[in-house]
Amino acid sequence: MSRQLQEHVSQPDTPAAPGRRRFIGTAALAGLAGVAACTDKGGNAATAAPAAASGGAAAAHEAASIHLKPGELDTYYGLWSGGHAGDMRVLGLPSGREIHRIPCFVPDALVGWGITNESRAVMGTRPDGNLKYTIGDTHHVHASYKDGNYDGRYAWVNDKINSRLARIRLDYMVCDKITELPNVQGFHGIFPDKRDPVDQKINYTTRVFCGAEFAIPLPNIATEDAGKYRSLFTCVDAETMEVRWQVLIDGNCDLVATSYDGKLAATNQYNTEMGAHYEDMMSAERDACLFFNVARIEAAIRDGKFKRIGDSKVPVVDGTHAANQDPKTALTAYVSVPKNPHGVNASPDQKYFICAGKLSPTGTVIELARVLDWFDGKLDKLDDAIVAEVELGLGPLHTAFDGRGNAYTTLFLDSQVVKWNVDAAIRFHKGDKNAKYVIDRLDVQYQPGHLNASQSETVAADGKYLAVGCKFSKDRFLPVGPLHPENEQFIDISGDKMVLLADHPVHSEPHDFIIFKRELLHPKQVYALDDFPNAVKDPKDSGVFRNGRKVTVRITSQAPAFSLREFKLKKGDEVTLILTNLDKIEDLTHGFAIPKYNVNFIVNPQQTASVTFIADKPGVFWCYCTHFCHALHLEMRSRMIVEA
Amino acid sequence: MSRQLQEHVSQPDTPAAPGRRRFIGTAALAGLAGVAACTDKGGNAATAAPAAASGGAAAAHEAASIHLKPGELDTYYGLWSGGHAGDMRVLGLPSGREIHRIPCFVPDALVGWGITNESRAVMGTRPDGNLKYTIGDTHHVHASYKDGNYDGRYAWVNDKINSRLARIRLDYMVCDKITELPNVQGFHGIFPDKRDPVDQKINYTTRVFCGAEFAIPLPNIATEDAGKYRSLFTCVDAETMEVRWQVLIDGNCDLVATSYDGKLAATNQYNTEMGAHYEDMMSAERDACLFFNVARIEAAIRDGKFKRIGDSKVPVVDGTHAANQDPKTALTAYVSVPKNPHGVNASPDQKYFICAGKLSPTGTVIELARVLDWFDGKLDKLDDAIVAEVELGLGPLHTAFDGRGNAYTTLFLDSQVVKWNVDAAIRFHKGDKNAKYVIDRLDVQYQPGHLNASQSETVAADGKYLAVGCKFSKDRFLPVGPLHPENEQFIDISGDKMVLLADHPVHSEPHDFIIFKRELLHPKQVYALDDFPNAVKDPKDSGVFRNGRKVTVRITSQAPAFSLREFKLKKGDEVTLILTNLDKIEDLTHGFAIPKYNVNFIVNPQQTASVTFIADKPGVFWCYCTHFCHALHLEMRSRMIVEA
Repeated sequence: MSRQLQEHVSQPDTPAAPGRRRFIGTAALAGLAGVAACTDKGGNAATAAPAAASGGAAAAHEAASIHLKPGELDTYYGLWSGGHAGDMRVLGLPSGREIHRIPCFVPDALVGWGITNESRAVMGTRPDGNLKYTIGDTHHVHASYKDGNYDGRYAWVNDKINSRLARIRLDYMVCDKITELPNVQGFHGIFPDKRDPVDQKINYTTRVFCGAEFAIPLPNIATEDAGKYRSLFTCVDAETMEVRWQVLIDGNCDLVATSYDGKLAATNQYNTEMGAHYEDMMSAERDACLFFNVARIEAAIRDGKFKRIGDSKVPVVDGTHAANQDPKTALTAYVSVPKNPHGVNASPDQKYFICAGKLSPTGTVIELARVLDWFDGKLDKLDDAIVAEVELGLGPLHTAFDGRGNAYTTLFLDSQVVKWNVDAAIRFHKGDKNAKYVIDRLDVQYQPGHLNASQSETVAADGKYLAVGCKFSKDRFLPVGPLHPENEQFIDISGDKMVLLADHPVHSEPHDFIIFKRELLHPKQVYALDDFPNAVKDPKDSGVFRNGRKVTVRITSQAPAFSLREFKLKKGDEVTLILTNLDKIEDLTHGFAIPKYNVNFIVNPQQTASVTFIADKPGVFWCYCTHFCHALHLEMRSRMIVEA
Repeated sequence: MSRQLQEHVSQPDTPAAPGRRRFIGTAALAGLAGVAACTDKGGNAATAAPAAASGGAAAAHEAASIHLKPGELDTYYGLWSGGHAGDMRVLGLPSGREIHRIPCFVPDALVGWGITNESRAVMGTRPDGNLKYTIGDTHHVHASYKDGNYDGRYAWVNDKINSRLARIRLDYMVCDKITELPNVQGFHGIFPDKRDPVDQKINYTTRVFCGAEFAIPLPNIATEDAGKYRSLFTCVDAETMEVRWQVLIDGNCDLVATSYDGKLAATNQYNTEMGAHYEDMMSAERDACLFFNVARIEAAIRDGKFKRIGDSKVPVVDGTHAANQDPKTALTAYVSVPKNPHGVNASPDQKYFICAGKLSPTGTVIELARVLDWFDGKLDKLDDAIVAEVELGLGPLHTAFDGRGNAYTTLFLDSQVVKWNVDAAIRFHKGDKNAKYVIDRLDVQYQPGHLNASQSETVAADGKYLAVGCKFSKDRFLPVGPLHPENEQFIDISGDKMVLLADHPVHSEPHDFIIFKRELLHPKQVYALDDFPNAVKDPKDSGVFRNGRKVTVRITSQAPAFSLREFKLKKGDEVTLILTNLDKIEDLTHGFAIPKYNVNFIVNPQQTASVTFIADKPGVFWCYCTHFCHALHLEMRSRMIVEA
């Protein structure tokens, strides 16, 4: 155990954060002592700045500014991954209020996601009609770019369990496509590109890059022969959501980053050892940040230099070390990074990728121009692209930016956010030992994973707010049984010192998020009837239309009544029920539930949705409006009569 | 249209609530003009108090008091129904933060509710192994009582779609039982009793009463003959969760209330006409609050005076008008209440039930002692139990109490909360036209449904805070597409004037809730290994145990590793995987996901959970920990090898 680690474990509780150090001494380190190879930082004056006290008078003073008066609107949107709840969440900031949940990978009983035919087509079904998957493990949320800032078209979120990528239309804030990546397990990092690598007029997102963490036999045939296990890096088309290409690599893919010029994508790798057990995965002292030369990869595919794996039609190019020794033709470049790095983040000045060390207490700064130089044969040693590698604290995971040259990195083991200056770190790395790169430290509660600042990963980083996803809340909220919420803390970063503003409990576990100005988004609040080819546009078109045992029931809703007050079916009918909400007024949503038939869904103003079921239970079933709509909402029903 | 309604529609927007009146003039009234029989209130001086301006300086001043500093704990718990998200939510108040979601009727991909064998047993499955239902429409949350206050044992919530009642153990905050009521549709109101009607030493909850809103043929055979349609009122045992008895009634059951002495339960009825269409349901000028004499009903059952319906074993007594003409033997009593009433609430002084008129602008105060007098033959005319019936405003829905003699009623159409004094209302009703019973009005945003005050429906009502569930939020939050959140507003009721403190967006639609002091609850945060008969208590007990094609896999978790680093199966095996989390530290939860097998669930500290699946896909599958646990969380895996 390093000296610093020992100090932390034995350090008494501070008044500002009761129980904090005690907790660090127990939960988060359980089992880690003896395996984490954290170097001794005692001799590094630059990292010895005392931790800022959290809470207290300063925080109370600032807090007023984030508490909106009733009716006041937030000034930022936040898009939050829903963790293994499988959704995407929309927050308003600075209030931290959750305004919306967008179902993606997991059914949502409220809106009928996974119930309606339309949503089932997006989610995917098995031959027996059941949904293919009903779970998800969402990690990273990113949105489409134009000219280096968000353009409000799309957001994406990944499902790690089943290697799927979901796209959200940000106009209606709904998931419209889900793609399952072939020959991949543990799909973890994602990032959209920001510009085309060749045609610089295409100044917006057209690709989404996806990293696969777990190496598996390719194709996946049961074997313990580690030599047959490999990971793939995947490129998905942002518009069609089809997989464009994959790259076979050494090691694995963890977090992903992209350059502003569109030329480079990269993924951190924590298991270059390609081990199957965690002890093997951390045996090497350095792992890698793996760069992809997007233009060369796509040229290779155009030239037919690819293979395919198993049943997949996707072209796969060879990005292994062995095949990419000549910089001038290399598709990939493995820059070394200390021990099991985690996050890789692009600085808003467009110059650097910063890798967080995780099991190494360091941040590594890689200069993108030098990586391009290496690909051009102008840099002899690839690792010379590393312009800084400085100690930050224990367990660095992710980095955000304020647009003023400072980086903010979460320290999982130290339970802190460290604010550090990138230029000062570069000077320190070059030999200027007087360069004080660490500017501030703030205790957070507890064990932070992701963090992000307002507009952080855009050219418009504005350095106002920082949100930190703390993985353990322990004693920060009223007890609610064994499953604690996580604690998303909100921090003011507009001054020299970080100021903790608020604790927000969240349903586990949201992982990653982005925060941007509300002006960048313009959601629509009423659908157009014509958006739905099966719309019932007039109540007069309602009715029961029979074709043998196949029956179509067409209904409209207008508060406080459905167009059909009753409809008759015969036991055994295959029924498709189509409901169009003819109400045009914003916020006037109706629901439609059929008791005992496991059917409930909503229709927003001017929306059409449909369900298909077998009328297998005879009797009378009162279908009713489940979404409060009117003073006579309780009386809004339709009677389904199933004759035996 | 009444004069007052016309005034509201034409009234210009107020600065305090832009767009409010315009909205009331459109969405909520769409289709209602011409059908709502709201009486003209112009002559009633008592209701002419001007509406209090909402927001503004007062609100801003008070707001500081509800904004907790980081690390400060809330002082109240709130238990919120999850609407058609199908869960129960735990809030901290006054902050309004959602701390926990408790899955009940709907699968929860985060915890594996609906995935683990243990949760599937609670939810119920079909013969094919699929869950019987995956949706829910939760409405009302109530908790167990002792001596007229919450005792922290249980909470209950209903599912209207499939007529189910769920119980939550409040020690671990998990759902442990779900009961489907027989021969019932539209199960809406619930309320636990507060004392036994006969044995007053049983001073705690032993029954839960359940009202069914939709009349159906009994038994449910397809017919349009309205004469065969009936509703039932149901009593469920609070401990066993088995159905004790049902009562056949005229009309329907809407909201439910119980008396503090345990002798009376009641349900409001909006469709005494027993109509099938909404016009029929509102044809009568008066409907009813239907009282049940609990002791007499249970005596009748002991005496064998019951029948059974269809396949159900539940005894059903006759509570219809025709069978209960003699007060001295009557099981039920139908007190008349104006037109389509909605909420019925018991005042904390234990004396009154208050019915909100919905389509009548009135509140009706029924004195419980007089209802008991009627059952005892001491009151000639049952409706003489009505001690007040006063005009409150348009669309009264629900009533809360401050323990100081005041009632707070939501006015759906007026978009207001009205504060009124019950004693003054009784004096006014008796003829004292100087009795000013309306004390204050507060605009809310918009169209409130349920409301509840801190400790409102207990003898310990403390009159500090009021939460109001507004069904439409419209312009109160950043736009998030067609599906708006609802707006739970938080109000200070400690003074003469109500003060609006905060808007809280919520995932639709939470309906009802209770708020109580945090001291009343003592959740446990670590399980006991012995709570689970299938626990794997020692890592050495791990392994793959085969019995023909049935395979049991026993695993333990201790951060950062599972006890089995890999396990081998054969294609076609029926696998039961049992995972015990041996970590003992609070908040140290692990997850277990199997890619492509649709399996993910969590195990809290010292918890055991299991899943059963067919190993139908050969290959290598990296099972991994989905719940962040440790610096080596990403490395925490187990390899499932399925041989072809």
